[in-house]
Amino acid sequence: MDKKTITMNPIGTIHSPYKQFKDMPIQGKFKPEVKARIELKEKYSAGLKDLDGFSHAIIIYYFHKSEKIEIESKPFLEDIRHGIFAIRSPHRPNHIGLSVVKIEKIEDDKFDFSEVDVLDGTPVLDIKPYIKHFDVRDDTVSGWLDKHFQS
Amino acid sequence: MDKKTITMNPIGTIHSPYKQFKDMPIQGKFKPEVKARIELKEKYSAGLKDLDGFSHAIIIYYFHKSEKIEIESKPFLEDIRHGIFAIRSPHRPNHIGLSVVKIEKIEDDKFDFSEVDVLDGTPVLDIKPYIKHFDVRDDTVSGWLDKHFQS
Repeated sequence: MDKKTITMNPIGTIHSPYKQFKDMPIQGKFKPEVKARIELKEKYSAGLKDLDGFSHAIIIYYFHKSEKIEIESKPFLEDIRHGIFAIRSPHRPNHIGLSVVKIEKIEDDKFDFSEVDVLDGTPVLDIKPYIKHFDVRDDTVSGWLDKHFQS
Repeated sequence: MDKKTITMNPIGTIHSPYKQFKDMPIQGKFKPEVKARIELKEKYSAGLKDLDGFSHAIIIYYFHKSEKIEIESKPFLEDIRHGIFAIRSPHRPNHIGLSVVKIEKIEDDKFDFSEVDVLDGTPVLDIKPYIKHFDVRDDTVSGWLDKHFQS
């Protein structure tokens, strides 16, 4: 039963200034001035109620421009291959993307955010509140990535 | 085009001691001694390469026991209704679940973790490395939830 195919329907679409992968920052929080918008399908707009009390959200979306699946691949940051579940490449099974974004404004079916690293036209699958009590871990180790972010 | 139905196939299954929703903690990190395992389909096991260099992962799964969608709902923690995108209820459009888990051991197609808040038999859609440089935000506000976690 757990092996069955699962069907999903986008809840809305992202309108972003990024039209191509090559224009995007590796993560949105490194270019905080860029803004984007999710336009929800109207039937879901009531689902945004009280999300504006949060500073950040997790958006889950579909990498609609990826047309392949790689089980090992090279990430943006280096020339070494890693397992697809150890990197954030779009070319993954199920093509699910995830970003933590900063909530700017919510009005009716429109959700404006910054800390953008998502392509224009991306179908949105879910929006979740970013909850520090659940989602933040201290003292984490980020494997092959840590050496690229020494400060 | 972005309105099209999207098809997904589970990459594996979670084996967890939690057989029913009522047994689970609100978040796995509050019961750190509990362990669970993802068994991947064999064709994906190479995708785990180098994930063991990380302390934590984000698992994305399908709430297979939810049979309804609510646009507003009451969360575990209080009796007030919020929009579905402002809570973490399973009864959401697309039924996508997300948890930050602690990596315990990875061997072949088996991924053992703690900080478990997932039901036994849950189909897994994706595993991503938890990257502090991307996923951690300081000074966040968690809306209606903060009052439940005053310390």
